[in-house]
Amino acid sequence: MPSLEEIIFPAIESELQHQIARLDRPGTQLFHEMLTYHMGWTGEGSGPGAQGKRIRPMLLLLACAASGADWQPALPAAASVELVHNFSLIHDDIQDNSDKRRGRNTIWVKWGMPQGINAGDALFVISNQALLDLATVYPAKTVLKTAEILQVTCLDLTCGQFLDMSNEKRSSLSIEDYWLMVAGKTASLLSACCTIGSILGGANKAKQEAFRNFGHYLGLAFQVQDDYLGIWGDSALTGKSNQSDLMTGKKSLPVLYGLEKKGTFARRWNEGPISKDEVSILSVRLAEEGARLYTQEVVDQMTDMALQYLRTADPKGDAGEALFELSNKLLNRQI
Amino acid sequence: MPSLEEIIFPAIESELQHQIARLDRPGTQLFHEMLTYHMGWTGEGSGPGAQGKRIRPMLLLLACAASGADWQPALPAAASVELVHNFSLIHDDIQDNSDKRRGRNTIWVKWGMPQGINAGDALFVISNQALLDLATVYPAKTVLKTAEILQVTCLDLTCGQFLDMSNEKRSSLSIEDYWLMVAGKTASLLSACCTIGSILGGANKAKQEAFRNFGHYLGLAFQVQDDYLGIWGDSALTGKSNQSDLMTGKKSLPVLYGLEKKGTFARRWNEGPISKDEVSILSVRLAEEGARLYTQEVVDQMTDMALQYLRTADPKGDAGEALFELSNKLLNRQI
Repeated sequence: MPSLEEIIFPAIESELQHQIARLDRPGTQLFHEMLTYHMGWTGEGSGPGAQGKRIRPMLLLLACAASGADWQPALPAAASVELVHNFSLIHDDIQDNSDKRRGRNTIWVKWGMPQGINAGDALFVISNQALLDLATVYPAKTVLKTAEILQVTCLDLTCGQFLDMSNEKRSSLSIEDYWLMVAGKTASLLSACCTIGSILGGANKAKQEAFRNFGHYLGLAFQVQDDYLGIWGDSALTGKSNQSDLMTGKKSLPVLYGLEKKGTFARRWNEGPISKDEVSILSVRLAEEGARLYTQEVVDQMTDMALQYLRTADPKGDAGEALFELSNKLLNRQI
Repeated sequence: MPSLEEIIFPAIESELQHQIARLDRPGTQLFHEMLTYHMGWTGEGSGPGAQGKRIRPMLLLLACAASGADWQPALPAAASVELVHNFSLIHDDIQDNSDKRRGRNTIWVKWGMPQGINAGDALFVISNQALLDLATVYPAKTVLKTAEILQVTCLDLTCGQFLDMSNEKRSSLSIEDYWLMVAGKTASLLSACCTIGSILGGANKAKQEAFRNFGHYLGLAFQVQDDYLGIWGDSALTGKSNQSDLMTGKKSLPVLYGLEKKGTFARRWNEGPISKDEVSILSVRLAEEGARLYTQEVVDQMTDMALQYLRTADPKGDAGEALFELSNKLLNRQI
């Protein structure tokens, strides 16, 4: 028997295709193709590996079902949050000058920067339209409530992106600035998914608030763990598939911790770019100065908070179990 | 005594500032500054000349008042349409590589392309938030209706932009393609302003429809007139302030007409870029082949349609008179 997630997954994909088909009209076929390519459905390298994990819509629908309602009517909202995520990916790739996304050429590499910006804009518009589709099933006030949450989140995303791009150029960055950025770039959308799902599921205010906090800490834990793996993960150390964050100069949490220590690591970091040969010894040095333990403790702390709020939200049935499983899967990657 | 427009104008500006102040918070001061600079309120060259005419919010509020309701509660919607317009300007300037807007450096020139994209995104988010602010005064269903109209328009804008950027690279372009592009890039938003204004003003379906058509034909007439002035306007001919559209290679309506004639103009156009010395003689040649008369007739026709629909909408009072005046002012620029 298929699991709940196995049933939900194709329904998300189908709703996403339905939403993006708004561009499937005379004169804009190529425009439509840009988006179906980006979503991983068409073009070279298309297929499951190119489509992403659809974590955000899954969280939304599980939060909805775990609050005691059918998840099917909430599908347009699930598509909406995934489209917001993908709109930000398209613009991020242009802003970061990234030419690959999930192993395939990015949209701006294939069709040029101007069309790339416009394709991202279209995806954001469609995410708004998807959310408004809820009005065929839910009361108008409920739809407005979810729209407000989504827009606050989108503004958080742009603020997080602003801070991220500004921070790259700043020599001094506090851990406080780091949390502000991560809250905007990662935690806000995950938090919105859980809140919107619980609202559509009919959860009361207290449970909505618990779901909101669950998503928030899940996002923080996920990001800090990503920072950890970027320096002490297998691939970062061996350099097999990913570059170490030490080489790209990313101001991740362990790096900021090391910089505040003003020790050997900080002195070397401030001298300029770190070469591949130095990565191994510097990651050991950073660990010796306490950054590894500190980062691991932060991940554990945020994970505990997330799971505690999830228990407070008291998610029901198969969907509730799936939420605990999904959280554990997200937060226990090869640490 | 100040005219209705003189009373409305500062109220629009104040609402826009209120909306953009969402970014005026710790950590994002510079982000806020980017947008206040773009809106013409701060930085070098700021002031009335840098702020634009705010035609779209004015149309919305006049359509509201001319439908028999107070315009003040509709201010958030007025801010919303102006913010959509400005979001598209910021991204257009990046896509077109334009370094000046109203005589000032564009946002991407001042803060770089990545921050420019993000600032445009933020303005779009805030436009959505502004519209949702209507919910404090209007019924939830009314707010959803206006949100749907705005999002359809935003998708039209991205489709128009897609066609515009694609058309630049196409050697053959039909007049049909031209109308599709202009409908998306110019007419759709003006049409949405008039429709949303009439809905918030309590107009019945028939009058909403008349307002919608008024805005649509106003937009088409405005764009075709712009095309006319781009070749036969004073500044285009003398080259004093603006380059002739013949030099920039813009596929405007008169050029497409000339290309379909396959005469002297078309042969020269197809040979490559047109120099400043040739502009005068080629604009005469294009006129001789009938393009000037044709374009003027199209402007007249679209203008007639716009005014006819405005009469059908039967706008009341000072606001009604102001709508006729604004239309005439927009459509009778030095032809």
